[in-house]
Amino acid sequence: MRYPARVVLTEVGPRDGLQNESREIPLAQKIALVDALSATGLTRVEAASFVHPKAIPQMANAAEVMAGIERRPGVTYIGLVPNEVGARNAIAADVDEIAVVVSASESHNKANVNRTIAESLEAIAGVAALAAAADKPWTGYVSTAFGCPYEGAVDAGRVLDLAREMHSTGAYAVALGDTIGVAHPRQAFEVVSRFFAEVPGPELRLHFHDTRGMALANVVAAMEAGAAEFDGSIGGLGGCPYAPGASGNVATEDLAAMLAAMGIETGVDLEAVVAVAWLVEETVGRALEGRFKRAVQGGRNSQ
Amino acid sequence: MRYPARVVLTEVGPRDGLQNESREIPLAQKIALVDALSATGLTRVEAASFVHPKAIPQMANAAEVMAGIERRPGVTYIGLVPNEVGARNAIAADVDEIAVVVSASESHNKANVNRTIAESLEAIAGVAALAAAADKPWTGYVSTAFGCPYEGAVDAGRVLDLAREMHSTGAYAVALGDTIGVAHPRQAFEVVSRFFAEVPGPELRLHFHDTRGMALANVVAAMEAGAAEFDGSIGGLGGCPYAPGASGNVATEDLAAMLAAMGIETGVDLEAVVAVAWLVEETVGRALEGRFKRAVQGGRNSQ
Repeated sequence: MRYPARVVLTEVGPRDGLQNESREIPLAQKIALVDALSATGLTRVEAASFVHPKAIPQMANAAEVMAGIERRPGVTYIGLVPNEVGARNAIAADVDEIAVVVSASESHNKANVNRTIAESLEAIAGVAALAAAADKPWTGYVSTAFGCPYEGAVDAGRVLDLAREMHSTGAYAVALGDTIGVAHPRQAFEVVSRFFAEVPGPELRLHFHDTRGMALANVVAAMEAGAAEFDGSIGGLGGCPYAPGASGNVATEDLAAMLAAMGIETGVDLEAVVAVAWLVEETVGRALEGRFKRAVQGGRNSQ
Repeated sequence: MRYPARVVLTEVGPRDGLQNESREIPLAQKIALVDALSATGLTRVEAASFVHPKAIPQMANAAEVMAGIERRPGVTYIGLVPNEVGARNAIAADVDEIAVVVSASESHNKANVNRTIAESLEAIAGVAALAAAADKPWTGYVSTAFGCPYEGAVDAGRVLDLAREMHSTGAYAVALGDTIGVAHPRQAFEVVSRFFAEVPGPELRLHFHDTRGMALANVVAAMEAGAAEFDGSIGGLGGCPYAPGASGNVATEDLAAMLAAMGIETGVDLEAVVAVAWLVEETVGRALEGRFKRAVQGGRNSQ
């Protein structure tokens, strides 16, 4: 087996994670979380979402989050934006990088942002123009890239078309999201292999949810196909609105621990990231599904 | 990637799972669990442990379990035995197959059964003679094959020596156990590859714990190296005494669901196995860590 020598992790907990929490997280705690994460050796942190607070109240105060955090040198702070208004706000808040999202399936895109895919691509083109003018790099996410809660199977060709289109619009990277955690290792290997063969140019990032416990297996399969960039969410923060009670993103600390065990460098300090995972459990007031922190808890009490 | 067309699963929940529960499970519920499991399409069920009840009270009534269950045609019922007394009792109870265990690390073997490895191998030779006389096939487990809670790293050469030795004593199959859930995919691939290259003869089975969430990733890596037989524990039943609060064996339903998604046959009815996973949560009175059942719970309530 050939694995990469080094993997780049993107922490999405403060955005993709917290936006799925029912509890409103106070501004100071959001800032503390981002700062704690950026002190662990993680070099990429999705810190905020510049959506309208009416749409996702959990993500209010995005500009205040960006203004309040410590900008640690070497760390890229990313803001998700849904449209040109969001892009202007994100640029005004001086994010280092912009993320945009389109679903690979029409019905999920409609449910998620009440637009057709074509309308989303149009909005993304508007964001791209603003990003270019402000000299901000941006990543294009393809959601439901491995399966859709409404439509089931998703055609990989369609996913690669969207990747190509966003790259041609200016995305330096494309992230394929397994939004509902149905990707399996054979599929991960095949889609990643096709991506590198058929979509020359953009960096590839993978965003796996751990709903069915397959996220780490998918990471391994994706690495075997050449991938070396993955999203994680501290503690396993996040959730899947289509499978209540199921877990969300793969836990950053589980991902970092597996890669460390395999001798793959991430630059992440495992002890530090585990400490933040415990902190985030307190912040959201519920047990999270990441496993590594309990496996190494040592003296910590457990039931 | 080449994966096997078909994988054989061995269900170890009634034994390796229940023996780690603090709650004593009544005989009738043990029997009901084994019968429910054998109705799911699983063809191998470790049903009981013929250890002395003073050593592991949870495993009392092994003979009564074997006498009470429905012997479904095509299903192999396995009994774990620690010594010749256990082997005689297991043979008297008419198990279809015997399992024996030795650790790859001296200190774990001492802690587990208060014997040296050499003493365990001597006991296994005695069991082997009884098994041969009774025409019972047996599997030799190597515990701590991927890491030891006391000694840390375990030499793979030592693991393969034990495998060879048990095969020469009569084991038709060897099972390598990741007792504390520290195996990682690179290691799983390497150990399995070496096994097939250096230990000709016995069937190979892998027994992964999911303590750090890496079990399914290890299954995939092991399949890539040629493995096609895996243990699972319904619901993720079981635990790891060295990491309280951490999960135990990989959940059978998670394993079966991943293999099904990958187009690999197991013969297991996923709906049926998920129903048993819910049942076993009620039996043990606590939430278990298997993920697939919650991901597909549909109408079930969740918090």
